[in-house]
Amino acid sequence: MGEVKLLGFWASPYSLRIKEALKIKGVDYEYDEEDLWNKSQQVLNYNPVHKKVPILVHAGKPIAESLVILEYTDDRWKGNPMLPQDPYDRAQARFWAKFIDDQLMPPILTALMRSGEIAKRARRKAEEQLNLLENEIKTGNKLFEGKGMGFVDIVGVVVAYWVPVIQQAAGKELLVQKSYPRICSWANRLLTCNVTREKLPPHDKLVSFYEDRIAAILKKASRL
Amino acid sequence: MGEVKLLGFWASPYSLRIKEALKIKGVDYEYDEEDLWNKSQQVLNYNPVHKKVPILVHAGKPIAESLVILEYTDDRWKGNPMLPQDPYDRAQARFWAKFIDDQLMPPILTALMRSGEIAKRARRKAEEQLNLLENEIKTGNKLFEGKGMGFVDIVGVVVAYWVPVIQQAAGKELLVQKSYPRICSWANRLLTCNVTREKLPPHDKLVSFYEDRIAAILKKASRL
Repeated sequence: MGEVKLLGFWASPYSLRIKEALKIKGVDYEYDEEDLWNKSQQVLNYNPVHKKVPILVHAGKPIAESLVILEYTDDRWKGNPMLPQDPYDRAQARFWAKFIDDQLMPPILTALMRSGEIAKRARRKAEEQLNLLENEIKTGNKLFEGKGMGFVDIVGVVVAYWVPVIQQAAGKELLVQKSYPRICSWANRLLTCNVTREKLPPHDKLVSFYEDRIAAILKKASRL
Repeated sequence: MGEVKLLGFWASPYSLRIKEALKIKGVDYEYDEEDLWNKSQQVLNYNPVHKKVPILVHAGKPIAESLVILEYTDDRWKGNPMLPQDPYDRAQARFWAKFIDDQLMPPILTALMRSGEIAKRARRKAEEQLNLLENEIKTGNKLFEGKGMGFVDIVGVVVAYWVPVIQQAAGKELLVQKSYPRICSWANRLLTCNVTREKLPPHDKLVSFYEDRIAAILKKASRL
């Protein structure tokens, strides 16, 4: 099948998705840790559009964008499918994965990593989106009740692990048990799954990484 | 297979995608035209997350988000596939479809439909993204050289038809033959394809729709 290489960054939730997927598929690969602030020539060559990791290189051919790489992994290695088999269930999985990346995470990140009116407005939006997800899980959508790590589960690790870490780094609360019990119980399942546990970046190192990021972002915003 | 219904809006490029896909698949469907400014209860029920069309309802079950619906259509009705069969080619198609929706169209729309510094900054970003697409087509990527309407082609109709219409409505030029000959030649192929031609909304009516939209947006911005 050709050699597999992953270009990633230790603190990136999007890189972690691909590590989990390759683990689930039982695919051996070479891992290149990239420096986000000093991008290697191979990142610029392989992903000139976004200049971002993760990038999966298979038999010399690069694929970028974590959701696209997850789909590729499921198409290429058929064992242990991550997407459901039924077309409607697949559509639901794709819909909620896209929801997490496009609708849910951006306002959460802004609410936690910015200050003032911008953070306040983002917080209201984030709460709206968290309520939508909470209600969806409440309907009993079986996507959120699997046993192994499915497509939406893998995508959801950013909510389960990164959001609490960034909350701690920012000294703010948003995603809490009392307001979103079903999201928190889903998150708990994702974090106790072996595939995830083995691959998560160290907690304290990640908190400290985000403390630095938040300080830098607030400093830059205060100069504008 | 159950009844198929499409909730759409005549001026929406995202609704047109689904009309094209269902035509390619030879699927008969009921069409409900929705009023974007006075949303029907069925839009709110079927898509509480975005409250937006297009929504495909198949055997009573709703699917939202145009790219998700396209994937569903390809998964459910196997004849005349829109995505390529090879996993790497599928990944490329998904990557460029996502690029068009997430990276290319937002700055183009802002550049054309806003004014002042916001439009100017968006224009620079739009030109960067157009150059990336122009260069990709120049490399000979076969995704852009198919005969029928593939996945990226269907997604690309927004670039081929809507961008020139909005340029005319705004009295601005951005995507022009001289600067982007390969994009324009691709666009020309998309527009002369029967599947597209039959389904496109009337040109003058669409220009007039966007003239009104732009006037409303600029009026609102001037009050802020």
